[in-house]
Amino acid sequence: MATEIPLVLAEEREWATAAALEKDVSSFDITTDVLIGGYGGAGVCAAIEVAEAGVDVLALERRETGGGTTITSGGQLYIGGGTQLQKDLGYEDSPEEMLKYLLALCGPNADEEKCQFYCDRSVGHYDWMVEHGVPFKTAFFPPSEGTIPVEDEGLCYTGCELGYPYREIAKPAPRGHTVARPGNNAGLILMTKLLEAAENAGVKVAYKAVIERVVLDEAGRVVGAIATIDGEQKAIRARRGVLLTTGGFIHDRGMVERFAPRILKCFPPLGESTEDGSGIRIGMGAGGAAIRMNESSIVMPFAPPRDLLRGIFVNRLGQRFIAEDLYQCQLGDAVVIHQGGVAYLLLDADIAATNSMGAQVCAEGTIEEIEKAVGIPEGGLANTLTQYNKFAEKGEDPLFQKHPNWIRPLDKGPYKLLDISTEKCAFPTFTLGGLWTKSTGEVMDIEGNVIEGLYAAGRTTSGFPAGGYNSGMAVADCTFFGRYAGRAAAEAAPLD
Amino acid sequence: MATEIPLVLAEEREWATAAALEKDVSSFDITTDVLIGGYGGAGVCAAIEVAEAGVDVLALERRETGGGTTITSGGQLYIGGGTQLQKDLGYEDSPEEMLKYLLALCGPNADEEKCQFYCDRSVGHYDWMVEHGVPFKTAFFPPSEGTIPVEDEGLCYTGCELGYPYREIAKPAPRGHTVARPGNNAGLILMTKLLEAAENAGVKVAYKAVIERVVLDEAGRVVGAIATIDGEQKAIRARRGVLLTTGGFIHDRGMVERFAPRILKCFPPLGESTEDGSGIRIGMGAGGAAIRMNESSIVMPFAPPRDLLRGIFVNRLGQRFIAEDLYQCQLGDAVVIHQGGVAYLLLDADIAATNSMGAQVCAEGTIEEIEKAVGIPEGGLANTLTQYNKFAEKGEDPLFQKHPNWIRPLDKGPYKLLDISTEKCAFPTFTLGGLWTKSTGEVMDIEGNVIEGLYAAGRTTSGFPAGGYNSGMAVADCTFFGRYAGRAAAEAAPLD
Repeated sequence: MATEIPLVLAEEREWATAAALEKDVSSFDITTDVLIGGYGGAGVCAAIEVAEAGVDVLALERRETGGGTTITSGGQLYIGGGTQLQKDLGYEDSPEEMLKYLLALCGPNADEEKCQFYCDRSVGHYDWMVEHGVPFKTAFFPPSEGTIPVEDEGLCYTGCELGYPYREIAKPAPRGHTVARPGNNAGLILMTKLLEAAENAGVKVAYKAVIERVVLDEAGRVVGAIATIDGEQKAIRARRGVLLTTGGFIHDRGMVERFAPRILKCFPPLGESTEDGSGIRIGMGAGGAAIRMNESSIVMPFAPPRDLLRGIFVNRLGQRFIAEDLYQCQLGDAVVIHQGGVAYLLLDADIAATNSMGAQVCAEGTIEEIEKAVGIPEGGLANTLTQYNKFAEKGEDPLFQKHPNWIRPLDKGPYKLLDISTEKCAFPTFTLGGLWTKSTGEVMDIEGNVIEGLYAAGRTTSGFPAGGYNSGMAVADCTFFGRYAGRAAAEAAPLD
Repeated sequence: MATEIPLVLAEEREWATAAALEKDVSSFDITTDVLIGGYGGAGVCAAIEVAEAGVDVLALERRETGGGTTITSGGQLYIGGGTQLQKDLGYEDSPEEMLKYLLALCGPNADEEKCQFYCDRSVGHYDWMVEHGVPFKTAFFPPSEGTIPVEDEGLCYTGCELGYPYREIAKPAPRGHTVARPGNNAGLILMTKLLEAAENAGVKVAYKAVIERVVLDEAGRVVGAIATIDGEQKAIRARRGVLLTTGGFIHDRGMVERFAPRILKCFPPLGESTEDGSGIRIGMGAGGAAIRMNESSIVMPFAPPRDLLRGIFVNRLGQRFIAEDLYQCQLGDAVVIHQGGVAYLLLDADIAATNSMGAQVCAEGTIEEIEKAVGIPEGGLANTLTQYNKFAEKGEDPLFQKHPNWIRPLDKGPYKLLDISTEKCAFPTFTLGGLWTKSTGEVMDIEGNVIEGLYAAGRTTSGFPAGGYNSGMAVADCTFFGRYAGRAAAEAAPLD
């Protein structure tokens, strides 16, 4: 066993990120071609690609089973461009329209190269999933019902495609592909199928095993890693590369404080507790650049019934601030980042006010009574409602272009106001920033130079949803770019 | 001369960040105790402290003269806590009240340690400036006149101290200390005095000289740097440390795209063209963590006369969104980050509509005519004005608590609307993110471990204005933390 490995950078903590130098590693305990750290959605797809290319692969998973956050997810993949499922259900789509949508939604300054790379290959990703045993039922779940299929419908809208201005930027198409399953456990079905496929392909996995740091040779190439496997430190030589897929950093509050302080007030963290930034730190220790570390997906807890969309969101001044029919993550961003975490939903008596959001009714009565009850300056809510109703009579919303389906005057009292502030509601949140990678998963330094031998995918990286998010994008990004990172590593020239 | 130095990380570009290894440096051309890269506000103050401690110091400046961005600045320093100037002019202040203000303004998640460290020593920083020949005239420039003294008054308000909620969080005090000068060139006077003080203290400076990368020993300690001096590559040994003070990265559009894309639409970059991120990259190449890289100071071009504060800012929907009397950087942030870069200022005929902002009048007439002219949905501006005027009659602003001094009903037509959108106005902007440092200037890696031998200060770091900015804070932060970084480096145990 390799012991007493000096580090490039002095550090004192138990859990390190600094790289070790090859010359300080007395001997390697294990040799493989591709070493993968983290066995969730990105890691397993990478492993399948490597194994299917006939190349030796070893995956290390910190827990006793694989699956990561993906196994606990809703099992939705944001896929499009004209998949068989879209065609079977009569929906037209193309890589061009999908790209227009992604560039508009995943900004500011969306990662054009990654979006293009993904749109061009998204249909192929669906086919790959099907070929690897992942089931999708040929049934559509209509947008009037929500963004999460109630039964096991395979296709639905999971974003802002029908919302403004997106419906004018790109031809809308449903792109949420949800795995068929009994009950609400599509993530479990998805990962069970992929873990099976990996096993069939001959992937080797060590559980209770974690990469501690990478090993660099004198030219700065990553040639392996120091890992702890079942309590023992091991030096592992990776002849073709090390691939980091350990997730994001939402569970490391120190990193959130340092890099994304605006989401400190959001609760709960969305993702497994293993998403503690370890892969990002290890990659940074090898010289990798971490980018867009302040970006996040903040989910407003706005669930079915969609009837509530007929209400209006207002801020602490009684002003509207967003089209109510945009996706939950755009709503979450608007409330937390732009409204200081304070927002309300105004409903009239005609809207079935089933309080399905888990939000509390904080005021009820006339508009004047509601203004007083929550401290909205006199006239603020009244003026907003007057203007809204005047246009709603004609089915119009010139402020935010909410879809006419959800527009109706709110004119029947008593009114109800739901408190959807961060202090009163859960806003599940996860991080979108991470290592800077090419579409091939190659990690880059701050100058854009590739760090040889180092790959990453999934939430360990800044992916195609770089600065904007819809449901299904994380699982799509992890699985897709995990695959391409696996391919690139498998094809890399091996060390002697 | 040291040549052919291999790098830790493979890279191909002319201008590198990766560190060199000491064992690859055949010999050092120059030896000093403390090597400073960049000779602006932070660099010169650091150099003075090192030299006054009797320790050998060499500063490298890329240009042919020193001064950096500070020499072109307004020469304002945000200093407080009870300076002699504050006392002489009858203003009470204390480190405690100043700290309350900084923690509220410099967030989210302000750097508490740095704010505390600064507030405790801010009075001393003023005294140090005076002792080093920097002149401040005992005269007060009243807030009704603006935030930039017209003559050479020494003290004024340069932030949101009188604005809401800050005036309730901390007892307001004027803390903008502006250097006495003929004309509007306080930065020139400030830096001329400091450059003289440095020369008197025996600081050695090489011009047309730039640090290319640091040199690490095998334990990861920074032991020197590779520099280009007047076209020749030199290896410089720094026995006590290397101190990076090269400014921020607003002039490197690639870094802005990657780390702070929300300010891409802001123009012009505020700062000298040498602020291209080189120090940040060099520090990252040595393992330093760069934090809050998305943070910036965006200046709304809202200049005297302050009469214009009696108008109201509205967004593209005709809604108010901020108290008009907050400081220009809070206004800039609100427009660019939270209103998508679109905003207007509404004035009535009674306000002297001297267009001193350089903004164009984009509509004029009745409120209804103005709404139509710029596409504000019908009733949006009218409702806003009705509500504003109703409270303004009583001198109140329950929406944003604008100070009563600036509140008056806007009731005399014809009205004028000024376009203050990013597409129509200049929003000078500079970056606030950078290397993560202790108050002593020691650079830390992502785990918070100090990188021995590496120091940084000024805009190369994330300073006390970590996530919020007022005028004078950059120059105060640069000069103050430059001094303390210099002291820490001077006191470091030297290499053999």
